[in-house]
Amino acid sequence: MKALNDYLIKNYSFTDSEIEVINKHLKPVQLKKGDYFLRQGDFCKSVAFVSSGTIIYYENADGDEKVCDFAFENEWISQLTSLLNNIPSKMNIKAIEDTDLIMLTKQSFDTLKTELIKFNLLVLEVSQSMVIKANDRIANFAHLSAKERYHKEVKENPKLIQRIPQYYLASYLGIKPQSLSRIRSV
Amino acid sequence: MKALNDYLIKNYSFTDSEIEVINKHLKPVQLKKGDYFLRQGDFCKSVAFVSSGTIIYYENADGDEKVCDFAFENEWISQLTSLLNNIPSKMNIKAIEDTDLIMLTKQSFDTLKTELIKFNLLVLEVSQSMVIKANDRIANFAHLSAKERYHKEVKENPKLIQRIPQYYLASYLGIKPQSLSRIRSV
Repeated sequence: MKALNDYLIKNYSFTDSEIEVINKHLKPVQLKKGDYFLRQGDFCKSVAFVSSGTIIYYENADGDEKVCDFAFENEWISQLTSLLNNIPSKMNIKAIEDTDLIMLTKQSFDTLKTELIKFNLLVLEVSQSMVIKANDRIANFAHLSAKERYHKEVKENPKLIQRIPQYYLASYLGIKPQSLSRIRSV
Repeated sequence: MKALNDYLIKNYSFTDSEIEVINKHLKPVQLKKGDYFLRQGDFCKSVAFVSSGTIIYYENADGDEKVCDFAFENEWISQLTSLLNNIPSKMNIKAIEDTDLIMLTKQSFDTLKTELIKFNLLVLEVSQSMVIKANDRIANFAHLSAKERYHKEVKENPKLIQRIPQYYLASYLGIKPQSLSRIRSV
């Protein structure tokens, strides 16, 4: 739990007693490469903090794996549409490296939001930073060429280039794998 | 303020006394078509609820207006990156119809978040629904053709088609105006 506790203290100045309250709700989980956090069609009933490893969000459709997002260490994962609306997930969430998670059930998550005002603030800030990140990706998709999108990611998010297999990266960027090869070889 | 009060009561069951606390912080503002809520390069210092009208988010770049989003009645507007990080906005936010807003300064917004737990919940829910909407748009951009993106919007968001001029809609969808004309004429 150390990675999460460090994150909570560093970013939100939680006190020792607040950390103790939070820790009672946490459950460390290890995923091997290829294990699922959530399968398409299942109901999402938890959120998790990624202590280490790499997570992929993708949809299986027409025999294709359509990649929507990745998460790395010190990021939160969940499938909000399913979690909040209690409907089946349209998305798989899977480890593509051995991954250490710290899980919180939806119930614990809701309890902490009402018990600790600072936890509520954390959830709000994480949500808002997700909005900012997503809107940035939208602007890239709407207004940049495939080549420009790739070079912007290389610059702003080198982890993607270093740790994500090229066929997943192509799908994430909305580029055909052969076009991405061409862009990278120039 | 009636539109906002109705929204607060209907969606979050605010009591009369809570509504009274909130109303002290609100300022109704009328924008004429073409007026700005925020100009690119300025600091965003408020959020607003759209009572009626239509708002566009766009970036001026290379002589082009690059459209990123729209907002309609019963939606919240702000430029989060600027508001939260206190940096200049990369985006213009402008009325493209006569628009009635109810404004909250950042200070009032922060006060209400600490004073009223339900207001905090509202902000969190609005943020989370923004994440869901944005991730849906990302999946459309990454995995659908221009034609499929257009037809999905027609189906799921008819307001866009009915109320947004075609050249703005093309930019929002990341489609060249002439390609959008072709798609619409089929």
